[in-house]
Amino acid sequence: MNDISRRNAMGSIALGVAAAAAPGAAVAATPTTGGSPMTSPAPAFAGGHAVKPLGFDPTKLTGLSEKLIRSHWENNYQGSLKALNMIEGRLAAAMSDKDLPPVVYGGLKREELHRTGSVILHELYFEQFGGNGQAAGSIRDALVASHGSFEAWEAEFRRTAMALAGGSGWAILAWNQYTRSLHNYWAWDHTNGPVTGVPLLVLDMYEHAFHMDYGTAAAKYVDAFMHNLDWAVVDARYRSASRT
Amino acid sequence: MNDISRRNAMGSIALGVAAAAAPGAAVAATPTTGGSPMTSPAPAFAGGHAVKPLGFDPTKLTGLSEKLIRSHWENNYQGSLKALNMIEGRLAAAMSDKDLPPVVYGGLKREELHRTGSVILHELYFEQFGGNGQAAGSIRDALVASHGSFEAWEAEFRRTAMALAGGSGWAILAWNQYTRSLHNYWAWDHTNGPVTGVPLLVLDMYEHAFHMDYGTAAAKYVDAFMHNLDWAVVDARYRSASRT
Amino acid sequence: MNDISRRNAMGSIALGVAAAAAPGAAVAATPTTGGSPMTSPAPAFAGGHAVKPLGFDPTKLTGLSEKLIRSHWENNYQGSLKALNMIEGRLAAAMSDKDLPPVVYGGLKREELHRTGSVILHELYFEQFGGNGQAAGSIRDALVASHGSFEAWEAEFRRTAMALAGGSGWAILAWNQYTRSLHNYWAWDHTNGPVTGVPLLVLDMYEHAFHMDYGTAAAKYVDAFMHNLDWAVVDARYRSASRT
Amino acid sequence: MNDISRRNAMGSIALGVAAAAAPGAAVAATPTTGGSPMTSPAPAFAGGHAVKPLGFDPTKLTGLSEKLIRSHWENNYQGSLKALNMIEGRLAAAMSDKDLPPVVYGGLKREELHRTGSVILHELYFEQFGGNGQAAGSIRDALVASHGSFEAWEAEFRRTAMALAGGSGWAILAWNQYTRSLHNYWAWDHTNGPVTGVPLLVLDMYEHAFHMDYGTAAAKYVDAFMHNLDWAVVDARYRSASRT
Repeated sequence: MNDISRRNAMGSIALGVAAAAAPGAAVAATPTTGGSPMTSPAPAFAGGHAVKPLGFDPTKLTGLSEKLIRSHWENNYQGSLKALNMIEGRLAAAMSDKDLPPVVYGGLKREELHRTGSVILHELYFEQFGGNGQAAGSIRDALVASHGSFEAWEAEFRRTAMALAGGSGWAILAWNQYTRSLHNYWAWDHTNGPVTGVPLLVLDMYEHAFHMDYGTAAAKYVDAFMHNLDWAVVDARYRSASRT
Repeated sequence: MNDISRRNAMGSIALGVAAAAAPGAAVAATPTTGGSPMTSPAPAFAGGHAVKPLGFDPTKLTGLSEKLIRSHWENNYQGSLKALNMIEGRLAAAMSDKDLPPVVYGGLKREELHRTGSVILHELYFEQFGGNGQAAGSIRDALVASHGSFEAWEAEFRRTAMALAGGSGWAILAWNQYTRSLHNYWAWDHTNGPVTGVPLLVLDMYEHAFHMDYGTAAAKYVDAFMHNLDWAVVDARYRSASRT
Repeated sequence: MNDISRRNAMGSIALGVAAAAAPGAAVAATPTTGGSPMTSPAPAFAGGHAVKPLGFDPTKLTGLSEKLIRSHWENNYQGSLKALNMIEGRLAAAMSDKDLPPVVYGGLKREELHRTGSVILHELYFEQFGGNGQAAGSIRDALVASHGSFEAWEAEFRRTAMALAGGSGWAILAWNQYTRSLHNYWAWDHTNGPVTGVPLLVLDMYEHAFHMDYGTAAAKYVDAFMHNLDWAVVDARYRSASRT
Repeated sequence: MNDISRRNAMGSIALGVAAAAAPGAAVAATPTTGGSPMTSPAPAFAGGHAVKPLGFDPTKLTGLSEKLIRSHWENNYQGSLKALNMIEGRLAAAMSDKDLPPVVYGGLKREELHRTGSVILHELYFEQFGGNGQAAGSIRDALVASHGSFEAWEAEFRRTAMALAGGSGWAILAWNQYTRSLHNYWAWDHTNGPVTGVPLLVLDMYEHAFHMDYGTAAAKYVDAFMHNLDWAVVDARYRSASRT
């Protein structure tokens, strides 16, 4: 969902969304070369999110099967991406209905937040794999400083994750831009998020992330997750986020 | 809660928090000049958040009484700030208990997320007041581009807010750093947040934000809120967030 | 919302709801005296909830103003009742749309749960007032047995309530029909509820229940709430629930 | 968790819980035959919930593997039961700490609600299996009356369930004792519940209920669930609930 793929994607699905969206307040005029003006949803509701490919070889992870990774990426991640595109079209249509009760609109907005969180967190999740699990670089030093030791940070990250076992949610290591500090945040589902937090390392604790391989043995999944991490990705996120 | 006030505050409350925190994994050694080493909680659990003063004259807003603003700032905001400091001390102590069940720890982590959201959102909220309500600058242009028109943006922001009337939550205009786009997000309570979203304009829809002045007439409160906005603050946040 | 008032109300609003509901799977045929068959929503979506009047004199409570009680009853309770009736109509209409994505339907179902909880809890809440606050009868004996002493029960009920101060939610004393035991349950908002629990005493901790009279002084509101309770109502609920 | 097994269980684990609970307000005196009085937690915090055995042969279901059912029953259900017993002991201990901040107590109360919901819903879930999936009896007639047709009821029940696919939650057919009506309720997690609703048919949509057999194909799981239902159980629950 980088800027280029997003722009490309918007071309391909704009018509479908325009069909769902009635003309109205949330629809921006688009220049045309003649005849009646075409309308398309405003960018906030354009729904043009495109699938981001896996950046690693899913047959090569240790302790996470290709079947699990592919199911997670194809069904859960892409399912959320399709839902987000659909919801954005519904929002545009709903804004053209002047009489829609706000509480009904709120149901759509909740799903927008839910799917926005799911899409972005899943893209960050898959991007982290393909490494040897060895933490290094400035992020390692920063975690020693923020949590007392790397082991203390890891113990808290794992305990936060295990608090979610058997249900849903994410453990999120984030750089909080506002307090300029590092924290592990607990998220019960895709709608939770640390305000002003930039996610650096995200651990999916929804059961779809591990049940196929590990059943209910969530701690073993967390081991496998940590083992396959590419900390260079986490370090790059940290350096980018903390610089500003 | 800027860096300087935070450092000052940490001096004044560190002893109290250290007393609550048993020595252990989450406690960093602090250099001392002799005798047995002192310990203090690691920065992630230091709890030294300090009160940020109001930056405007609360007797001068239109349609929002001094009594309401002072109650909101003194009780709700500062109550959350004290709770966050307390919870961070509890987290440090809890991490030194090796046998604490993760689900019990999760209860504390939820409250950390809850109070972190409350403190930061409230500081951003109060910082916005003192203006004439006229949107201008690059943020206005950006909202026209993202939502079709400024009126279309405002209609969606207000409807998102009204979906929360009678309960709790926030309407949050955010710059999403990851998708590089502007959205109004719905938040049911302080734990909800748009992942990778930088809040630009935050509208508190908890009943404590308006009930004293408006009873259940939430729409009139939203009018007053919009009327007193200093859009230069919102514009500065947008320019800072979108530059990176 | 007893059976009789409900039946009366259904007559008066059925047309409005029928207009919103497209004919389809969720619509039951109603016998007519001739011509084309009329349809009306099935009872599950009929929306005919009617306002239950206050059973006490709102000018006579101690420490809870008539203005607060009337605002609470007219705006918050009746607002939820209207929303529930509206949502049930929307559900009927949505079930006739075969292509509606389930996640969109889920937004309506969440609101149905939300408003069902709000309507029923508010009716139970107002029904409790008008007494002298003295607990007596079999419920008092049962609380002594379940919690060690009446004071121990009350301390836990109050602490559960105060955990919600500054936000939303309910403290609910319930008879759990399944475990056949008494518990104080914590509810974060109208969607939370103890499964198989019959609510006996419900304490509204939404800020609309007290802010107008007490600002953020939630503990004083809880004092006033307890002071005006008619425990005969609570006792009757307990005897009815525990008998079965 | 019937009355008899509960009483038996209380004998076996009381000591463990008593050790966790400091003497105090939430602890009831227990008669002893001599020496200093023994204390044990009050019944509300006694934690003596005992495992309810499966009432059907898990090797005999169609489309739900023995491995899945056993994992669900042993790990998810029993894990919640152990957590509930643990949390009740923690609540007793916490009530003896006069200085515990209510928001910290609230974290434990949330988990009590969460695990109470999980334990009861899981017991109701497993109790439903072992039939041929054919709805009959008074519950079938009642669903025809409430939803227009059995097919209309089933379509709404399935759509409510599918709204939760990919995450967590329950679809709950309940008899609402207060409104005396039948509804399918949406529950996002174990903490949601229809107030005054008696659950008649509960469909677990947590991914642990199906991922091992069906991956993300939630609709196929719902098919299998419906296929194995013993509607006599549902009918008995309905007759019992609606009689009172």
